[in-house]
Amino acid sequence: MTRPRPLTGRGDLADSVRVVGEFGVIARVVARAGSAAVAEVGPGDDAAVLRAPDGRVVATTDVLVEGRHFRRDWSSAEDVGHKAAAANLADVAAMGGVATALLVGLACPADTPTSWLEGVAAGMAAECAPLGAAVVGGDTVASAPGSGAVVLSVTALGDLGGRAPVLRSGARPGDVVAVAGRLGWSACGLAVLRRGFSSPLAAVAAHRRPSPPYAAGPAAADAGATAMCDVSDGLLADAGHLAADSGVVVDLDRAALVRTMLEPPGPMQQVAAALGADPLAWVLTGGEDHALLATFPSGAALPEGWAVVGEVRAGTPGVTVSGEPAADVAVSVGAGRTGHVHFG
Amino acid sequence: MTRPRPLTGRGDLADSVRVVGEFGVIARVVARAGSAAVAEVGPGDDAAVLRAPDGRVVATTDVLVEGRHFRRDWSSAEDVGHKAAAANLADVAAMGGVATALLVGLACPADTPTSWLEGVAAGMAAECAPLGAAVVGGDTVASAPGSGAVVLSVTALGDLGGRAPVLRSGARPGDVVAVAGRLGWSACGLAVLRRGFSSPLAAVAAHRRPSPPYAAGPAAADAGATAMCDVSDGLLADAGHLAADSGVVVDLDRAALVRTMLEPPGPMQQVAAALGADPLAWVLTGGEDHALLATFPSGAALPEGWAVVGEVRAGTPGVTVSGEPAADVAVSVGAGRTGHVHFG
Repeated sequence: MTRPRPLTGRGDLADSVRVVGEFGVIARVVARAGSAAVAEVGPGDDAAVLRAPDGRVVATTDVLVEGRHFRRDWSSAEDVGHKAAAANLADVAAMGGVATALLVGLACPADTPTSWLEGVAAGMAAECAPLGAAVVGGDTVASAPGSGAVVLSVTALGDLGGRAPVLRSGARPGDVVAVAGRLGWSACGLAVLRRGFSSPLAAVAAHRRPSPPYAAGPAAADAGATAMCDVSDGLLADAGHLAADSGVVVDLDRAALVRTMLEPPGPMQQVAAALGADPLAWVLTGGEDHALLATFPSGAALPEGWAVVGEVRAGTPGVTVSGEPAADVAVSVGAGRTGHVHFG
Repeated sequence: MTRPRPLTGRGDLADSVRVVGEFGVIARVVARAGSAAVAEVGPGDDAAVLRAPDGRVVATTDVLVEGRHFRRDWSSAEDVGHKAAAANLADVAAMGGVATALLVGLACPADTPTSWLEGVAAGMAAECAPLGAAVVGGDTVASAPGSGAVVLSVTALGDLGGRAPVLRSGARPGDVVAVAGRLGWSACGLAVLRRGFSSPLAAVAAHRRPSPPYAAGPAAADAGATAMCDVSDGLLADAGHLAADSGVVVDLDRAALVRTMLEPPGPMQQVAAALGADPLAWVLTGGEDHALLATFPSGAALPEGWAVVGEVRAGTPGVTVSGEPAADVAVSVGAGRTGHVHFG
């Protein structure tokens, strides 16, 4: 495990969680939290109280573990905050909702610099702010003795604005399959970092801070999407979840994926050429970009940002790529597996 | 750190998180989760969708770390589930709300027996069920390599049923101070376990599974409580938070506390006599029973389960016990500090 670096000098090492204490940390983090438009009672009481304009609330939790989902020598504190928030905000978008608030459970070693925690809070606040969301509560505790890794558990809440939630189970034969957002960039960036490089920066930055297409989720719901999910485990894996839950075959169009995700050529081709890899492997199996995958009735007008990359067919539930089984395609592009496995 | 015991035989060691995988764990845990009355979309999609009948939602997060908040050799998996749920459900009650749903973020070593996780889920379900609440979502990930401790981050959501939330900041001079629920039992049970004993069972059981007075929270709100909080850090410490946020002195009545919490004599006196301790130390500084502390206008009719234990005065914000400063009282009863420090 990579030990924390003193991020801004010697002062931080003295100014650790152990020294400042739980309440000191909370006060400093709250100062960075921004404020949620829906908050009637914000941080600092036993619980937050949030308006739920729709009369329903969307709720989801994702856990990030240091050494598995991020490394403190590869990502700044702000990067980790952006990434932890994005993973959850994207899940709300994938239901057709708009995120309104985050709650954060954090376990960290007692010697964690408070500046690192403030950086995480600032990153979360920055990722949330364009949506009007903010961190409204949480709990910070010291890890167990001898356990040096940070664990960050984030819960996002959101509002559906009157929309019906878009589930994974609604895809029907004849629907088109579409994607919004980027695929493969985070995995490409990780491949760069793993080899000890830090450029091309566009790929590395994509790994450090994903850019999920938040607005595409509610737009898809408004456009009549029949099923939707967030791509966090990789396209083949998440399409597989959607196919299984809907009882259908999701057939991805290889040429459409190349056209949509790999043209015009950019950093992914550059890195792939240097590493002797096939960039399609990252597109098909890379996780953590938090693109959205959805199905729409054939003939539906797709909202801005969505591109058709396949179609839904009847048959034994599963995923094919231009008719070929996903597992075979994963092997042929050198991915070796259909699902994303985090780097720990 | 105590390593996990094989809870029901050799089969469990093979049947670990590493073997079953994340999706296998989730499927097994969801099978134990029960179902939430407010759930429109339950576990298994990108996010849950929950009805918020009040038009607002109460939200709170607490983190439990193995070795600090529980030990797997002192508490069963079911106990840990009960305790993690109770800590959060009590926070919702302390706002005047009724909990509706939990989301759970769990990081655990890859060799954790799946039966242990199923036990945690069963304990959470059992703690939630009387309220009509249930686990509606979550995320389970393997800990970082070399990090052997379980981290459990629980978010509770709740409904106010039209009540105004009761904050910590509303206490006014002249109000009475009242408590609902038990104080000191968990700390007493911990003292027993620390010395290697397992009886009296009533005290040990109270440490393993707190019994927060959930209904007393909304009842206090209905009765006009001016301020309220959950006692999780110890009575003196949490009364201090309420005093600070309200800008008042909370004066606790020592005789009333003894009468309410230590009469008739029971397991706490028995343990205190054996250990040469003053049971009032546990009452004043023990956390984790999740009693509720509230203030009411003088003359208000207190709901069932609430007992007056002091009064609110004007002055430099702080806590006194029959006029004596809290810190001095803590020393005089042998607690040595006003706040609860978890055992890690």
